[in-house]
Amino acid sequence: MRSHYCGQIDESLVGQNVTLCGWVNRRRDLGGLIFLDVRDVKGIVQVVVDPDFEQLFSTANKLKHEFCIQLTGAVRARPDSQVNKTMATGAVEILASELTILNAAAPLPLNMDGHLNNSEEQRLKYRYLDLRRPEMAQRLKFRAKVTSQIRNYLDSHDFMDIETPILTKATPEGARDYLVPSRTHKGQFFALPQSPQLFKQLLMMAGMDRYYQIVKCFRDEDLRADRQPEFTQIDIETSFMSADEVMSVTEDMTRQLFKNLLDVDLGEFPRMTYHEAMTKYGSDKPDLRIPLEMVDVADLLQGVEFKVFSGPANDPKGRVAALKVPQGADKFSRKDIDELTKFVGIYGAKGLAWIKVNDVSKGVEGLQSPILKFLPEEVALAIIDRTAAETGDILFFGSDKYTVVSEAIGALRLKIGESLGLVADEWKPLWVVDFPMFEELEDGGLTPLHHPFTAPVGVTAQELKQQPEKTLSNAYDMVLNGVEVGGGSVRIHDQDMQQVVFEILGIGEEEAQEKFGFLLDALKFGAPPHAGLAFGLDRLVMLMTGASSIRDVMAFPKTTTAACPLTDAPGNANPQQLADLAIEIKLPAK
Amino acid sequence: MRSHYCGQIDESLVGQNVTLCGWVNRRRDLGGLIFLDVRDVKGIVQVVVDPDFEQLFSTANKLKHEFCIQLTGAVRARPDSQVNKTMATGAVEILASELTILNAAAPLPLNMDGHLNNSEEQRLKYRYLDLRRPEMAQRLKFRAKVTSQIRNYLDSHDFMDIETPILTKATPEGARDYLVPSRTHKGQFFALPQSPQLFKQLLMMAGMDRYYQIVKCFRDEDLRADRQPEFTQIDIETSFMSADEVMSVTEDMTRQLFKNLLDVDLGEFPRMTYHEAMTKYGSDKPDLRIPLEMVDVADLLQGVEFKVFSGPANDPKGRVAALKVPQGADKFSRKDIDELTKFVGIYGAKGLAWIKVNDVSKGVEGLQSPILKFLPEEVALAIIDRTAAETGDILFFGSDKYTVVSEAIGALRLKIGESLGLVADEWKPLWVVDFPMFEELEDGGLTPLHHPFTAPVGVTAQELKQQPEKTLSNAYDMVLNGVEVGGGSVRIHDQDMQQVVFEILGIGEEEAQEKFGFLLDALKFGAPPHAGLAFGLDRLVMLMTGASSIRDVMAFPKTTTAACPLTDAPGNANPQQLADLAIEIKLPAK
Repeated sequence: MRSHYCGQIDESLVGQNVTLCGWVNRRRDLGGLIFLDVRDVKGIVQVVVDPDFEQLFSTANKLKHEFCIQLTGAVRARPDSQVNKTMATGAVEILASELTILNAAAPLPLNMDGHLNNSEEQRLKYRYLDLRRPEMAQRLKFRAKVTSQIRNYLDSHDFMDIETPILTKATPEGARDYLVPSRTHKGQFFALPQSPQLFKQLLMMAGMDRYYQIVKCFRDEDLRADRQPEFTQIDIETSFMSADEVMSVTEDMTRQLFKNLLDVDLGEFPRMTYHEAMTKYGSDKPDLRIPLEMVDVADLLQGVEFKVFSGPANDPKGRVAALKVPQGADKFSRKDIDELTKFVGIYGAKGLAWIKVNDVSKGVEGLQSPILKFLPEEVALAIIDRTAAETGDILFFGSDKYTVVSEAIGALRLKIGESLGLVADEWKPLWVVDFPMFEELEDGGLTPLHHPFTAPVGVTAQELKQQPEKTLSNAYDMVLNGVEVGGGSVRIHDQDMQQVVFEILGIGEEEAQEKFGFLLDALKFGAPPHAGLAFGLDRLVMLMTGASSIRDVMAFPKTTTAACPLTDAPGNANPQQLADLAIEIKLPAK
Repeated sequence: MRSHYCGQIDESLVGQNVTLCGWVNRRRDLGGLIFLDVRDVKGIVQVVVDPDFEQLFSTANKLKHEFCIQLTGAVRARPDSQVNKTMATGAVEILASELTILNAAAPLPLNMDGHLNNSEEQRLKYRYLDLRRPEMAQRLKFRAKVTSQIRNYLDSHDFMDIETPILTKATPEGARDYLVPSRTHKGQFFALPQSPQLFKQLLMMAGMDRYYQIVKCFRDEDLRADRQPEFTQIDIETSFMSADEVMSVTEDMTRQLFKNLLDVDLGEFPRMTYHEAMTKYGSDKPDLRIPLEMVDVADLLQGVEFKVFSGPANDPKGRVAALKVPQGADKFSRKDIDELTKFVGIYGAKGLAWIKVNDVSKGVEGLQSPILKFLPEEVALAIIDRTAAETGDILFFGSDKYTVVSEAIGALRLKIGESLGLVADEWKPLWVVDFPMFEELEDGGLTPLHHPFTAPVGVTAQELKQQPEKTLSNAYDMVLNGVEVGGGSVRIHDQDMQQVVFEILGIGEEEAQEKFGFLLDALKFGAPPHAGLAFGLDRLVMLMTGASSIRDVMAFPKTTTAACPLTDAPGNANPQQLADLAIEIKLPAK
């Protein structure tokens, strides 16, 4: 139906007849002529319709935005004065000689130029129009390039693309499973996988050596933080490879991806321990583009009478930390600080203490802060010394439970970094390593920081049992500009070790057998040492395209209430279907 | 952990030390030495353990089948007398100097040599052991190569890999949908897609031009005919391409796939109309490797008194057809024919008439058959003439409803072809085209032969409405050796036409709006002409690897009752989960 794509028309075709198919991106009537911008997947070209061609002109006169057309015409150079250098095809135009309307378009429910006028709901309802905007189309194109590059890399490194089931067994994090009633086994349910974790481990036990899959995963949870019920994972697993080797190959893959698609050289990724990341950045996914760091000061404050500081300073689970903003003293008004105080409140912080350093040479006299009256002079000075604060700096303080301070001041660091324009315009990847195996729950129980199949570092099963909370795991997260783009670990391949981990997590023998019997079984038959990693494809593409939400890099995302305004899913099931599945709807009482 | 793979050890490495990881495939104790066949993903190599290395020997003495080990040793040439030419590494062996047991293996629940001793249930329960058999591993490897080749082909032909949702709206064939209760929208359900059909059409309306996806699809149906609840589709859609162009590009892709992976030249695919396929082969997916054809003879039998023939011969919905088996007269005993009669009974045929041609020169005297007494001589001779039967041939007859005869005699053709060894050892692809738009249901209603989005050929919406049962669709199926490997069509891109098709199918306006409102909407806004095709990946790989079931080309298939013996899915949901989803189990009364 066409000889060329719109975006391919250039000066080399001048004098030739071409046939195009596409959409009317814009129409202008000027000096008796009709000018059309015709758009297809590869670009836009200008078409001129001359009234001398009567029938043609009358057809062209019917054209409105987004009509789908086919046209033939001669390519000609534009007069110098009309060359449009911002357009790939801006040196030429097409003088139409034939025109067919393939499909008309009713008045559009979306504004196709400035999409900011369109609500998210409207954009999703008319997604097929929203995706016609070149910006959106480019993102999907870019996403396809990312997966293609990654596949080529992994294929050429002997990784095998293997599909794992979508209809599978419920997982430990069952509360977030999507369930699927079975018609054949009435009263029983499949679950959609939150990740192919156990299947990829089984593939290693099957001797597949190097596995990958770009695969949908599912999690039925509240969607606040830009999450989606279904998301895509680049899932990788290897046998007989150490953590270092897995990190090396996936780092190399990421480096090549950025080089090939963005011409960005990421360099070698630094490694940082979990402890260092939490200490300096209050986060296990630090954004290293921001040059602000936290400094612990609890030891300086253990003796003060001011309970806000001395309480957490003396609590083994407390933390007191300062965040220094160099030359920030005159950048924060009282009102600004009040807002920052509200902001850290989101993370549970009960207040936000601060000290402005007006003149460091004057000792405490040169400091300004509502809290100075509660601090002995030598303590105030010790803090200035510890943080190496200088004239013009401001210090913010968090003092609370360890996690509250880390989260609140970590978030404050990002907020101030952004609002003061301190975020460097570069890519800052790193590996975070040496995570604790477990973290403590409110009730004193332990929960795995990654998942219960993560191997510990340097301990036997018996040693792990004795001090689980002190053991580090052999896990590693790849972090890029403050976003965790990938995470993985060496897995447990020893049956005893796996059983001890279940025990520590309070999973009894019977429960372990019911939920993971097949894994424990599989570990009996010569399971190899294995390790892997999973990337979040949506987030990676979001970062690489500069999109502000993962919804903008997915063709058909759901809303934040997990619905699809386009198809109106979820919808009602008919009674016969439900009867066949042996289920009934039982709405909760209002 | 290793310097080489087992399968890579060859004479070029003689004298070098290598470190390997893998599994004990076999152990023999011979002449005081221990011989190990060690296997990894790339092959098997022989390792010798000498009792001179005492500690090493004692470790090796513990090894049993499928222990996972790491070993180091020197590569040496085998003595000429011990070279094993059937083994890629058969010219060398490794003299072990270090040996570590990475994981022991308990006695195996599967026989790893001859898997025929293992039941399907056992094979699936211990899938991680079943997949260690090189035959199974090779199939998965081959499957990965197929998808990789196809992706490369489509990427290089400007097709964009775009993901469509798995949690979506129920489709017209709703009875076979897997439903997923929504937690956020209680009492409502998502459906898992039977295919991304509507989403790929929406992507064309979004201007994506050429789309592909290798994607899981789901169908909750009885699994008799080697089907699986989840299967994988190579899904393709294009804009502004004719049926011919889609066939051309997908045929070329298939040809390259066979050339690259099997070194088979498929040549140009012949095209056959649906009518010809049904007439000659009783099937819309004829296996052209079998040189038997059906011949219609109803017109010869309309006047006979024998009701078995004259009834269907005079019924516009009847069919009477003969299948000639050249030189088959002495190959079928009475008992054989009795069994064939039972066989066609499966397809609803009430009997199987036959005529043996003992001597064609003798006229009816030379024929042998229980039905001859019912046939006038000239009719019997006319049949011999029509079928060009010769001395030594046998004719089988079907006489019944059109579909019964086509299915029964079509199946008989395959069965006889196989049992007499008539199946040519070659690849026989073809396109079947010119399908009817609709087929008649028992109740006289119409149902689409493909799906309700298939475009008709050469009619307006009004013309279609007037004679739907006479209209052909613009659909095409790719058939290979009697298996439908792909199917597709030009789609309807005109709103009126789509509405007429819904009307013909008895889908009222309200129902159409509820189920497909978004599609009808989308057709309003400049939808382009579009066409596509979907391949069944599992079947294609099954054919290419010579596997006898699609289960053998999937890593973790379900059983024929849609269960997973490995993970024990589906399983019970806990009451809290069900309450969260606002559903209750309501088992049918026994």
